[in-house]
Amino acid sequence: MIVLFTDFGVAGPYTGQVKAVLDQRAPGETVIDLFADAPMRDPRAASYLLAAYADWFPAGTVLLAVVDPGVGGARAPLAARIDGRWFVGPDNGLFEIALRRAAKSEIWEIMWRPESLSASFHGRDLFAPVAAMLARGEWPQWTPRPAASVRRPQWPDDLPEIIYLDHYGNAMTGLRARLLPPHARLGAAGRVFARADTFSAVAAGEALWYENSNGLAEIAVNLGSAAQTLGLAIGSGVTVEA
Amino acid sequence: MIVLFTDFGVAGPYTGQVKAVLDQRAPGETVIDLFADAPMRDPRAASYLLAAYADWFPAGTVLLAVVDPGVGGARAPLAARIDGRWFVGPDNGLFEIALRRAAKSEIWEIMWRPESLSASFHGRDLFAPVAAMLARGEWPQWTPRPAASVRRPQWPDDLPEIIYLDHYGNAMTGLRARLLPPHARLGAAGRVFARADTFSAVAAGEALWYENSNGLAEIAVNLGSAAQTLGLAIGSGVTVEA
Amino acid sequence: MIVLFTDFGVAGPYTGQVKAVLDQRAPGETVIDLFADAPMRDPRAASYLLAAYADWFPAGTVLLAVVDPGVGGARAPLAARIDGRWFVGPDNGLFEIALRRAAKSEIWEIMWRPESLSASFHGRDLFAPVAAMLARGEWPQWTPRPAASVRRPQWPDDLPEIIYLDHYGNAMTGLRARLLPPHARLGAAGRVFARADTFSAVAAGEALWYENSNGLAEIAVNLGSAAQTLGLAIGSGVTVEA
Repeated sequence: MIVLFTDFGVAGPYTGQVKAVLDQRAPGETVIDLFADAPMRDPRAASYLLAAYADWFPAGTVLLAVVDPGVGGARAPLAARIDGRWFVGPDNGLFEIALRRAAKSEIWEIMWRPESLSASFHGRDLFAPVAAMLARGEWPQWTPRPAASVRRPQWPDDLPEIIYLDHYGNAMTGLRARLLPPHARLGAAGRVFARADTFSAVAAGEALWYENSNGLAEIAVNLGSAAQTLGLAIGSGVTVEA
Repeated sequence: MIVLFTDFGVAGPYTGQVKAVLDQRAPGETVIDLFADAPMRDPRAASYLLAAYADWFPAGTVLLAVVDPGVGGARAPLAARIDGRWFVGPDNGLFEIALRRAAKSEIWEIMWRPESLSASFHGRDLFAPVAAMLARGEWPQWTPRPAASVRRPQWPDDLPEIIYLDHYGNAMTGLRARLLPPHARLGAAGRVFARADTFSAVAAGEALWYENSNGLAEIAVNLGSAAQTLGLAIGSGVTVEA
Repeated sequence: MIVLFTDFGVAGPYTGQVKAVLDQRAPGETVIDLFADAPMRDPRAASYLLAAYADWFPAGTVLLAVVDPGVGGARAPLAARIDGRWFVGPDNGLFEIALRRAAKSEIWEIMWRPESLSASFHGRDLFAPVAAMLARGEWPQWTPRPAASVRRPQWPDDLPEIIYLDHYGNAMTGLRARLLPPHARLGAAGRVFARADTFSAVAAGEALWYENSNGLAEIAVNLGSAAQTLGLAIGSGVTVEA
């Protein structure tokens, strides 16, 4: 299974072209659209989102992860094996949080290059073919990448910020819920929210926070939009009040 | 064939995770994205949309229908066989209109539970596995659900409201066109529209109503957006003028 | 491989219903979503986009191309073989630019009709079944269409306008980059942009133009949105300054 995690957008030709490449190079392989709207040009926020969601997929999954504002520049293309899953994407910190939480990880620099490589679409031309190879059990041409030469940003283990807003206006934080004190309250946008198990535990229009289905602390409004009601955006700060 | 009818949104991880579950549990089964933007948190409007669009699919189709603002609360999970198609989703009235129009229907409460059930994502954890079982011809653990105990709201047979706005700004109503008088006019937003067979039967910028490709009466503007021009939204009232 | 190029929108039921038809009539055939947000009701802008992106797909690909504001009116349904690829869609100029650039092309009028043809959704009822037949190597009922009777608009060979805005706010023009003088600058929205190989060749927030991954000249802002920053929209004029 190849899982797409990108900031390509849900519209436009980019995901379709990536899938055409995967179909040609790994026919019959299941391809899942996970996020096409990962935090745009923001490997830092995306890194927390990727770590939380990759963890749900079985060993052997190939995560094709492209949030790559430096495409065409000097950053290296990487492949990593992190707790049994493959990650393919740019060396810009996108894998940092998954790497940091891993029991076991290995990283390679991808040396393989396609016959034709565009300057602006390595997702299609470089990362997709490599993801297809890995899904088929073939190794691309690569070299082990010493940890010291991989970009390992000094980001916190959990990020007290909003990292994703979904269609309902629910606001995911970069905090793992299970690491928070059981009765912790979360603050954001000048307000404070108590924990609840589910939306309907509070009245319609009331805000809460809860552990979402992938383990992140998430701020929501029952039967409403937390993003709109509270004015939250990606990058909004979050405080933990024990 | 498993058909997805949800309010998950076209962006974000929800549909992708549902598809990953379906792929694991019903490998090779065709999965169709019908609506990911069904009326949000609105089982009533969604019920008319679901009935109109489900009807187009062949017998044996499994409709995974999740518009479920009460997820994690007390509402039961249901499976229903309605005129040869399977419906899987919450007991909140979402199947009401399909049930009411059916020649034959049976309803079960789903007793099966996954090993791990999140509080907020039964679409992934509970409904998707059951849809996969039904698509494979396997029965989940369930019990017949007496009609009296299913939520059967007292909604009208046809709904004189806007229930969906598409990308073009065309506005679907909850009215079946074939039940309207042949020369009926529709009123909405303080205006009245005559029936036409197709957009180009009226001048550019003019409004009309017509029977859409799934039998609903739909208000449109030729070469324009009815939603914008007329200020229509989901829930806007519609009148029938014979 | 069947490639979808439409203005149906990324939300809503249209693409899903088309895929259900393709699955029934060409089971197992790969279907790729290329554009569901081609320029809406604008066969002229869409024609340049289609020509640029179709060119990337291998011979034998079937392009199901539906930007069809005249659906239900008098325009004929066409199938065309253009340099080894199939194009299926309406006779409204949508194939014009691909035809004009072709070394070899043939055009047929589709005479086949489904048992049931809606007035407003020929993409589902007529074009999808024909695309499925062609993908399976079957010929629909058709008649050769003399060039003189096909709609061949007098559009320029390259279009000095914005034809598409992507998720990042990058603005594609209808100009092929390789036909522009090497040091040409592009003007739009009262400003002038120099050519660069990639985004990061200019400072953050600075505008540039470059050859995109499908050969079109594209205006972008490094780490920003050209659409927003410059106020570009589909149809905005572009000048070439040698």
